[in-house]
Formats: sequence, C-alpha cells, structure tokens
Amino acid sequence: MISVAEARARILAPLQPLSAETVPLSEAWHRVLAAPVTARVTQPPTDVSAMDGYAVQAASAQQGAVLRVIGQAPAGHPFAGKIGPGEAVRLFTGSVVPPGADAVLLQEDATPHGDTITVAETLPPARHIRPRGQDFAHGETVLHPGQRLSARQIGLAAAANHPWLPVHRRPRVAILATGDEIALPGEPLPEGGIVSSNSHMLAAMVRAAGGLPTILPVARDTEDAIAEAATAALGADLLLTTGGASVGTHDMVQAGLARHGFALDFWKIAMRPGKPMISGRIGALPVLGLPGNPVSAAVCAVLFLLPALRRLQGLPADPPPTLHALAGAPLRANDHGADHLRATLSRDSAGRLVATPFPRQDSGMLSLLAQAHCLVLRAPHAPAVNLGGDIEILLLESEEV
Amino acid sequence: MISVAEARARILAPLQPLSAETVPLSEAWHRVLAAPVTARVTQPPTDVSAMDGYAVQAASAQQGAVLRVIGQAPAGHPFAGKIGPGEAVRLFTGSVVPPGADAVLLQEDATPHGDTITVAETLPPARHIRPRGQDFAHGETVLHPGQRLSARQIGLAAAANHPWLPVHRRPRVAILATGDEIALPGEPLPEGGIVSSNSHMLAAMVRAAGGLPTILPVARDTEDAIAEAATAALGADLLLTTGGASVGTHDMVQAGLARHGFALDFWKIAMRPGKPMISGRIGALPVLGLPGNPVSAAVCAVLFLLPALRRLQGLPADPPPTLHALAGAPLRANDHGADHLRATLSRDSAGRLVATPFPRQDSGMLSLLAQAHCLVLRAPHAPAVNLGGDIEILLLESEEV
Repeated sequence: MISVAEARARILAPLQPLSAETVPLSEAWHRVLAAPVTARVTQPPTDVSAMDGYAVQAASAQQGAVLRVIGQAPAGHPFAGKIGPGEAVRLFTGSVVPPGADAVLLQEDATPHGDTITVAETLPPARHIRPRGQDFAHGETVLHPGQRLSARQIGLAAAANHPWLPVHRRPRVAILATGDEIALPGEPLPEGGIVSSNSHMLAAMVRAAGGLPTILPVARDTEDAIAEAATAALGADLLLTTGGASVGTHDMVQAGLARHGFALDFWKIAMRPGKPMISGRIGALPVLGLPGNPVSAAVCAVLFLLPALRRLQGLPADPPPTLHALAGAPLRANDHGADHLRATLSRDSAGRLVATPFPRQDSGMLSLLAQAHCLVLRAPHAPAVNLGGDIEILLLESEEV
Repeated sequence: MISVAEARARILAPLQPLSAETVPLSEAWHRVLAAPVTARVTQPPTDVSAMDGYAVQAASAQQGAVLRVIGQAPAGHPFAGKIGPGEAVRLFTGSVVPPGADAVLLQEDATPHGDTITVAETLPPARHIRPRGQDFAHGETVLHPGQRLSARQIGLAAAANHPWLPVHRRPRVAILATGDEIALPGEPLPEGGIVSSNSHMLAAMVRAAGGLPTILPVARDTEDAIAEAATAALGADLLLTTGGASVGTHDMVQAGLARHGFALDFWKIAMRPGKPMISGRIGALPVLGLPGNPVSAAVCAVLFLLPALRRLQGLPADPPPTLHALAGAPLRANDHGADHLRATLSRDSAGRLVATPFPRQDSGMLSLLAQAHCLVLRAPHAPAVNLGGDIEILLLESEEV
C-alpha cells in the first residue's frame, strides 16, 4: 500500500496540460487561459474625465472665478476645439478631456449662470483626470496563462479588445460504472440491487471541475462486458471506472481493461475510505479505478481526480488546499491509514471555525456525505485530539463538489 | 441618496423565486432544488456486508474455530441458502448478508484451507454489516428545497432513485449596454471610443450565479435607440442596463425605458464606486441600471445583482457573506458613502488573513479589479484603521466573479 501523497504524485506525473483551443469571450468563463493576453488598445485611449463636471485650466479655476462654458463633450463626442484660460467645457464621466484643459472641476463645485460657471473651490491640476493608458497600454500583458478566467478577467480581456481567447481544451472524462448489482435511477432494479449513484455524482464533479463527462452504459461484472464498455473510452483524456476495485472484482476490471493493454501502476492506498483504488494506463490514456462505494468514490475523486483535472487543464495540480479548524468532538488516535472524516462546520462564539465529524463514519452513508461541509484529514498514526484541538480540514464546498 | 442596505432591500422586496422546471439528473448540478426529494428506495435494501470477508454466525466464529464455506455471494448475486452454525459464505463489500448470518468475518481474519476457513480472531455480532435502511429509508426526505445541488447531492438523489429533479427556472437576464463611445471587442471603434467590457463581464457573472444571460446589441445614447433595444428584454426575468446612469445620461436611459412604462424606484446610492445606479420596473420586469464604468458596474453587480439572482432562484437572498481580516495598509476615515476598496489577500506569519487595498482605487482601473481577491467594505463614516487593524471583507472568488 502507498500513501495518499505518493499515489497523487504517481497519478499526476505523466499528465500534461491539454492543447489549446480558441473560444469566444462569451464561452471563456471558468476556462483556463493557455497564452498571455496582451492589450490591443490603450485604456483609456486618451485623457478622460473621472467625474461629471467641467474641463478647465486649473490656473484659472480659483475660488470665485467666473468661467465661460464654450461647449460640451458627452462621452463618445469629443469637443472639437481647445480650452483657453477662463474657459470651461461641460464633461461627463468618460468624456475626452479637450486639449488645453488640465483639470476637471466637479459639477458640485461649480455654480452655473447661463453660459458661465462660478468656481466654488480652487482645485489642483490633474484633478479628476484619468490619464491615457492609466488602466493599461497597448502591448501590455493584462492576463497571464494558467489561471481560471473570472468574470472580471473576461471583462478585462474584452476591454483589451479580444473577442476570442486561447484556453486549454476541457478534459473528456469517460465514466464507466461496473457491477451486477446496480441500475441507473428509474431503471428496473435487480433483486437485492442498488441504484447507481456514482456515475452522475462523478459526472457533476467532472463538470464542476471544468471537464466534459461522458457516462458510459453500466458494465456487468464480466471481463467481456468491461472490455467492450471500455472501448468507447479509448478516445477520452481520462477513464474513470467505479466498482470492481475491491478484492475479487478488481482482477476482473483489470482483466477487462487488459484486453486494451492496461498497465497497472498500483491498486491500494493507505487511506480510509477508499483503500482499493486502481491507477494505471491504457497506452496514453490514464485510468483511475475508483471504489464502487459512493462515499469512497467521492473522497478518492476529491483527492486524486480533481488534481488530475487541474493538471490536464493547465492549472497548478497542488493537493486540494486545506484549512485549520477546532475539533468539535474528541478524535481517537489514528491507525496506519490516512482517514477522511465527514464533518460539518460551524463557528464558535469567537468566530473560529469548528469542524465536527459525524458520529457515524461508515462509508455507506451517502446521506451524511451529502450534508458534509468538509473532510477532516487524519494523517497515518495521528495522535488523539481533544475537543477544541487543532485539526486540518479540506472544504468540500470550495472544491464545488 | 439611500444606503447600500436600503437599496438592496428595495431591489429584493418585489422579487419572488421563479417557477419550477424538471431537469434530468445530469443537468441538475448547481441548480436550486424546488421541492423536497424523498427516497423511492431503501438503502441499503437489505443487510449488506461493509467489507470483503465471510458471512458467519458470530457465536460459532470463535478464535481457532474451523468453519465450512458453503458458497459465495458476489455483490448482485445473493446466496440462495441459509447459514447455520459452523458455516460461512464468501462475501464482498456490498454483498447481501445471507439469512442466518449475523456478522462478517474479515478476510484478513480468516485462513482458508480448501473449503474451510480457520477463524483468526473472535468477533462480536453485527460486525461489518450495514443494516437495511442505514443510509435512508423509503419515503424519507433526503434533500430539502432551497439549496444549490452539489455533486454529492446529485449522487444522493440518484441513490434515492430519482432520474429527474424539480429545480427553479434559471433567471433570464437581458443585458443592455448603452453608449455612443463603446464598441464590442473586435468591432470598429469610434474615435476616442473604448471597447465595451461590461456586457461580457456581466454575462459571465450571471452565468456563474446560475442565470441565463442574453447580450442585446449596444444601444446608442438616444431615447429611440434605448427604447428599441429594451423591447427585446420584455420577456426576460431581469433587465440589466449599463451606462447612462450618470448625470446627463441617466435621464436618457430612463426616458428610453419610460416608453415601455418604466417606473423609477431610486437612482442614487451612498456608495463608491457606483453611486449612480438606477432601480425600477417595467411592469413586472425588474430593471437594474448599472453604471457604465466597469469597476462600478462589477461592484454594484456583486452587491445587488447577485442577491437578486439568488432570490429569483429560490435561494436565501442574504447580503454576500463577509469575513474579517487584518488591514495590510492603514485606511483613512471614510466619508458619508460606503466604500468598496479593491484589495489582495495574503496570510501573515501566524496564518491570519491580511487584506491590502491597492494604493490606486480609481474606478477606471479594471486591470486592478481583475487582480483583486476581495473588496474591503468601509461603512459610511468608518473611522481610520491602523496597519493590522480589523476590517471586513467580501471575497470576490467565493462569489465566483
């Protein structure tokens, strides 16, 4: 058996970011930028007003002075002339500052009388002017690759005049659930059978993480069925199987995949839940064989699938980020396997984060997994923790699962 | 001018959750559940093994005892007979526990010899058995309405045998950018013009928040153009305009919308950036008129649009959640308007969150907004804060913008 960290490192080692594709700006949100974005325009393109008011020469805008309003310049309609001493042009936020002006007098600091204004307060030069290129200059790199694009960054790319953006291709993930005992929701159930929850749970996780899931038909527990079903996965970027990772069935999944040339890397991790997890490859296709138990499958997916999807998309494939919290219940000393306790979060009266594991940690409790806010990470041989002691947690919500 | 809290309350007051629609499980991730989900099956449907091992009668599984293996029961293939004293049936995780058995002997605690096993360790009854209904029972409510569905909850709904789920309809948001000076990315720019960034930034925010954006053609700054463009918005759930909210242009947007019967509620909020924000209605259609400045538009969208979209989707429309952090720079006393400083986050040596506002807070700096991790919230008349003082922040990343 290998450790969680070693398993993750071995899964990630052969993975490379997928190639780039060009998408319209309207489809670029949450995608991972594959190349720098440089500004194709200068913003603002010229000195513009930061406020509603009057373009003036600061030297003539002394308190009490009367200035002649010689025109106006709404945004998008620059004033054609030039401003001289004692003159003013009505401006609005974003209006081009006319030549000759060096400051903007706020409208609330000007009292209009017909075509003149009286200055209520002396103002220093360059006041309320956004100089040309203040935001960015033509040719400047405004966005760096390797980050998920936020709405604000989409706005910045638009402002920099990019209708299209280069992003890493979304990983295509084939999901193959195996098992004689399972049926998809709404389908006839075999006797003693259970409804398959892994395929749709994992598909949602893949989608949330930026991938494109394909749910393959459920394969019965025979080599033939598994081999046939896996054929459809050969064009994918990752094959995810669930079930058949436990003693007695892992051989069959491996045997089914072996017909496509499957090479096993490892199939046991010193962790709970989820010990039996297959990792290997069919040619260049990475294969992750998750346990059939939904709680185990979800925990393994958070720890191994999500970093793999990040790496494939060109993001840093660091382990999922963790936080510290106070233990909401005492914890026993741990054995040799890393444990991942399902827990809820609350705040104590001082506002500190408190993580309280569910009293039942049976990995058959999908209902508790669905209510959990976080996993409490218990390292191998971690000592007992008292109520209120310091523990490390992994937020499930920030991972969008 | 009204306060941020009053503006939000007045925007939210008339909004109701949109009606429900039925979506397949595969489309339900991130949607908001509109009705309780009750289990249509019992899980597990019968007592099942939690481990790989042997079904036995605990009374006869004393250390050193030799048991006869009378069959096996892979998951999905229940053993047809009944177990008596001194007998065992080979089981795997998820296998149905045969009648007569009351415990599972772990395979590592059994030494096989032909068709017998020797018990290595005495085990208590009910060990390693998941009793029928441990996860949930038929008819039990497993998911409550008014929450966004996570991947884990999708898994739980699947396990409860639901191929379809009732969710609130996604809000259709029409986005109307106005301005003589703007052009969409890649299109010919008027002289002194700027590239429009608001439409695509807001569309990404709407999508991230669960809505369906429609970007209308840019409207020139005339009543006719605005009135005509707004026609296309009349079937939407929300009309978002940008630009034309400032002095001199707000009248034109309002006049254009007035031809459709626009009723203004307010158009000034005591805040920075974003003071001039129009709120009103065209019949039952809520209208939010955001400033044309992208930084102001983004801040107003976080404070007002996102809660509105939450309410329309059936989520609690609380103000965006805030955190406390240490000030990474001293802050001046604030004036009468709520301020929203763009800031980066870091951790000090003790692991505490530190928010450092950018030295430039000009609302023309979209490049800084794109780099910001959070907004530092400065209440009206907030006193000065020293370096390291306590401040309130709103995470932009957790709002997915």
